[in-house]
Amino acid sequence: MSFYSHLECHECQKIYSRHEINSYCTDCNQPLVAVYNLSQGIPKEQAILKDRHDMWRYAPLLPVVDPRHIISLGEGWTPLLPLKKSARKSGVARVWLKEEGLNPTGSFKARGIGMAVSKATEMGIRSFCIPTAGNAGSALAAYTAASGGEAHIYMPEATPQVFRLDCEVMGAKVTSVKGSIRDAGLAMAADNNDGHWWDITTLKEPFRLEGKKTMGYEIAEQLDWKLPDVIIYPTGGGTGLIGIWKAFREMQQMGWIESIPTRMVAVQTRGCNPVVRAFNQGLDHCTLHEAPAETMANGLRVPKAFGDKLIMKTLYESGGMALDVSEEDMKQAIYDFGRLEGIFLSPEGAAVVAALYRLVSSGYIGQDQSVVLINTGSPYKYVENLM
Amino acid sequence: MSFYSHLECHECQKIYSRHEINSYCTDCNQPLVAVYNLSQGIPKEQAILKDRHDMWRYAPLLPVVDPRHIISLGEGWTPLLPLKKSARKSGVARVWLKEEGLNPTGSFKARGIGMAVSKATEMGIRSFCIPTAGNAGSALAAYTAASGGEAHIYMPEATPQVFRLDCEVMGAKVTSVKGSIRDAGLAMAADNNDGHWWDITTLKEPFRLEGKKTMGYEIAEQLDWKLPDVIIYPTGGGTGLIGIWKAFREMQQMGWIESIPTRMVAVQTRGCNPVVRAFNQGLDHCTLHEAPAETMANGLRVPKAFGDKLIMKTLYESGGMALDVSEEDMKQAIYDFGRLEGIFLSPEGAAVVAALYRLVSSGYIGQDQSVVLINTGSPYKYVENLM
Repeated sequence: MSFYSHLECHECQKIYSRHEINSYCTDCNQPLVAVYNLSQGIPKEQAILKDRHDMWRYAPLLPVVDPRHIISLGEGWTPLLPLKKSARKSGVARVWLKEEGLNPTGSFKARGIGMAVSKATEMGIRSFCIPTAGNAGSALAAYTAASGGEAHIYMPEATPQVFRLDCEVMGAKVTSVKGSIRDAGLAMAADNNDGHWWDITTLKEPFRLEGKKTMGYEIAEQLDWKLPDVIIYPTGGGTGLIGIWKAFREMQQMGWIESIPTRMVAVQTRGCNPVVRAFNQGLDHCTLHEAPAETMANGLRVPKAFGDKLIMKTLYESGGMALDVSEEDMKQAIYDFGRLEGIFLSPEGAAVVAALYRLVSSGYIGQDQSVVLINTGSPYKYVENLM
Repeated sequence: MSFYSHLECHECQKIYSRHEINSYCTDCNQPLVAVYNLSQGIPKEQAILKDRHDMWRYAPLLPVVDPRHIISLGEGWTPLLPLKKSARKSGVARVWLKEEGLNPTGSFKARGIGMAVSKATEMGIRSFCIPTAGNAGSALAAYTAASGGEAHIYMPEATPQVFRLDCEVMGAKVTSVKGSIRDAGLAMAADNNDGHWWDITTLKEPFRLEGKKTMGYEIAEQLDWKLPDVIIYPTGGGTGLIGIWKAFREMQQMGWIESIPTRMVAVQTRGCNPVVRAFNQGLDHCTLHEAPAETMANGLRVPKAFGDKLIMKTLYESGGMALDVSEEDMKQAIYDFGRLEGIFLSPEGAAVVAALYRLVSSGYIGQDQSVVLINTGSPYKYVENLM
């Protein structure tokens, strides 16, 4: 049983039937967002499958209608680790780490891609394509193999070997492209000009967002429905940031929480910071980061997200903000945090930790506040970048 | 609250007080095993902490007495994935994969080392040492950092870079040693001749076994207490094999199950197969594998386990067996399984999958039977071996 109702353009509110296959709003060129029948209030017992210990625990709040179409590799229901030492050291009351590196294929991409492939399979789609510089390709290779479908993955030539190995092992078709991820996207578009493959580029299809949303439900449930004051999120495509906020809004709609105290903070790197620039200028959208995106954090090499307006909306609605950190900050945070907590962060997770200290120093986060940090992936896929 | 009572030599039954620090039986040179007060029967509600979603869910059946000494990084409560396609292809009724690659530091070592460091911390120990060719060192580096203690890790020079990086990030002291893991062990023993560091070599301290035991409880609970007919386990040091079996015996003692249908199967590689040789000769112990242990499966490079007698006991008691597979079998299984299931196995996990097909062909596993496969680690730490 799912409360899924329809898709809606976040910009013009145009409604798209859930029985048709839709990617994004053809009027606005903006993302479509899944809407559920929640307004009459839904008790938690009807919405949470307590015996399930993956993201499908929240299946009634997800778009897959028939549970037989769920393709699961154990994604989600990741630990929310209390970090007492980091709380003490940074000078805030409570800090937790959402450890997304413990997902299948080593990153939180498993949530979004797992959801997109499951829902597409329910709609009869079997062939997928994506341009990727890393983990999204790994996840797509895994879930399409599990679904019995096929994956066409376009990667910049410089992509680390481990991501290629994932695709090779899982039988995905990889095309290497000279240049950046944008060039990979262009090459893919040329090969897919008649749309025979389902393009699951971030937010160009509506359901990766629904997978990422489950992080929000998990954080809330793991904190016994007392939301944190701040969530710090490393923002590339931004689906997780938008998704967590969407979950909180849905929880409010269902009557599970009265208000949302949480400020959503986006972290980027100096080498690629379109969201930070847009926030500092008070814009509702991002402009393209023109220079090559130079950072060891693969997940943050996004010069302009397709969901840029949703990212900015989330920051403003939640009273959050955006900031960037340097490569040196990240590297230092990996080592400092490793020694302190015994956790080897991905560069993206390290950006979040560096941001925590900055935000406490600046007074943005108060001493009595609670903070959730998101570590989006396993460090073991970054060994080439780190050595 | 813990039902932990005392330590006992598995060979001579000599009892050691739980209030003293003990490593192994000084009379027999054999492992000590933790014993609990279970014989009066314990209801599940008293032994399982339903709100906890890591291995400490079973804390009352574990040796740490005061929960404040638990050092947790989110280890355990890993997915047990149903593999319908592998069941169909191999020709058995039901197959599941226990996906241990989704543990902190990327392997099931997190369970054993997490338990050993927690219990040692409770006993006042702060300095640890271990010889390792990989994941045990990573896990020790992580848990000692989390505990605020110190780790001294001895590695063969040829150990893949990723394991060194783990130790460096987590602040462990690494000593590189020319030669094999045995040479690393000798160098460590020389530096630790007065025992100022706590040696947590597999089964030379009693509590890693208790951590690995939690796999058995999880498998049982995830299968709603209906145990599988066969468990196939990649056997290096063997702690997991022994531990799963110990959990099943404890469950029987507590009255949770009447009998244990499960046959425990040990898989090794042709390049290092002391358990297989011992099993084929009907021995109660293993003889040293003299030749260099040549295999891409780091976890199976154990020429003679300290717990060899416990391994053999487990195989005989359970009516199980031991078999070896080739490097080619493993490599083929990684690719075949990746394409079929969308899961990238470690070489050790691939050895298990190769063994499944062999055991069905030979008739050892019947068509109507159920099988649990153990994948012990993340493939991403093996990229150097696989490319």
